[in-house]
Amino acid sequence: MKFDVLTLFPEMFQVFEHSIIKRAKDKGILNINPINIRDYSGNKHKKVDDYPYGGGPGMVMQAEPIYNVVEALQNQYGYKPFTILMTPRGRKYNQNIARELSSKEHVLLICGHYEGIDERIMPLVDDEISLGDFVLTGGEIAAMAVIDSVSRLVPGVLSCNESYEDESFYNSLLEYPQYTRPEVYKGMKVPEVLLSGHHKLINEWRKYQSLKITYEKRPDLINKTKLSKEELKILDKIKKDLDVNVDK
Amino acid sequence: MKFDVLTLFPEMFQVFEHSIIKRAKDKGILNINPINIRDYSGNKHKKVDDYPYGGGPGMVMQAEPIYNVVEALQNQYGYKPFTILMTPRGRKYNQNIARELSSKEHVLLICGHYEGIDERIMPLVDDEISLGDFVLTGGEIAAMAVIDSVSRLVPGVLSCNESYEDESFYNSLLEYPQYTRPEVYKGMKVPEVLLSGHHKLINEWRKYQSLKITYEKRPDLINKTKLSKEELKILDKIKKDLDVNVDK
Repeated sequence: MKFDVLTLFPEMFQVFEHSIIKRAKDKGILNINPINIRDYSGNKHKKVDDYPYGGGPGMVMQAEPIYNVVEALQNQYGYKPFTILMTPRGRKYNQNIARELSSKEHVLLICGHYEGIDERIMPLVDDEISLGDFVLTGGEIAAMAVIDSVSRLVPGVLSCNESYEDESFYNSLLEYPQYTRPEVYKGMKVPEVLLSGHHKLINEWRKYQSLKITYEKRPDLINKTKLSKEELKILDKIKKDLDVNVDK
Repeated sequence: MKFDVLTLFPEMFQVFEHSIIKRAKDKGILNINPINIRDYSGNKHKKVDDYPYGGGPGMVMQAEPIYNVVEALQNQYGYKPFTILMTPRGRKYNQNIARELSSKEHVLLICGHYEGIDERIMPLVDDEISLGDFVLTGGEIAAMAVIDSVSRLVPGVLSCNESYEDESFYNSLLEYPQYTRPEVYKGMKVPEVLLSGHHKLINEWRKYQSLKITYEKRPDLINKTKLSKEELKILDKIKKDLDVNVDK
């Protein structure tokens, strides 16, 4: 899968020279290509922003340099990649959108800065995505989150041992607690059942914990999930167990 | 404001060697200090993870190296910084949490990797934050988003000209469209009103656009906001205008 990223700070994307994503790049499964918008400014001062019409603080990124890059890429590839603008007004990013994007072969992300980008770039844009209801200094870190979360769904990026089927949001439930060596640390013991070697009991414990954590921390996810009969039974038990604890 | 970040990939935080955040670091307003958890492994192989008790795929980060770092920092500072674990089960990050954190002088962020961190680190953790309902390969990019969005609220980080009072989520409304030079680009004209120099009309147009975009793209934000009488009147007009368009 290929990601082109239009940015004023291409060096920031060296963030992907590490960890799992770096390995997938080396294997040729991923191609992450930051492009400096300034290189397409069309003027010798490499100026890409100007004052907003109508006044107000800050600078606005101009449309022309963005068109220049997209047109150059279109000439190079023979098609326009699926183009996403990172913006607070976009649809709020989640794992479903990550899955949707992971089926594309080529995505182009546009990162804004300052007081935004000239509205006239919108004819270039196929999708608008917001990372969440918070304000960043620019679109770069938001684009990184999209690239990272989409990339790990691309076949071959994670090894079998890093399989994601147990993970948070895969089944819309949060993960059960994990423990590793030593058995006792600072007086805190690993739950007995995890040392039992009894797989059925371990699975039951994990399912209970996963449902309990989700019920306590993110009840909205429980409502969104179609629970199995077995899970509904466990959830009933959790509610009773929590009531007993409250009564104590 | 100081951020310590516990991570397996400290080099990723070179992302802050650019842009506005870099400038604030140079001015001494921000201190972003990534710490390699491996340096506190307590073993010569710098091993910080192990198999999960109870089986399952992947590796789990051990508690001991994390305790080692936090205890070392506590000795160094004479206090434990406010400690945040980046985790899908945390409270979902938003601008209110950003504002809350921007009032702290010192924050420590813990970035997980692999299948998570040994649950026994929880006594160290003061807050759990999730960037949103999507899965990342590690906590680093989530920590970056928190550092970036909190930092820009710290006095002195943004210049006057970058003032944030007009921005998305500041008033819980999305921003109006922006335009900059030239007046006509590829046949697309800047809205007449923005060229009028008539500040009252410009403000009215912007308020209308801001409410319209929010109503169309994120009606949930409208419901969360206490609109003024004037804004409610504009919203009524928007709804009528949209109905007229639908009828056409």
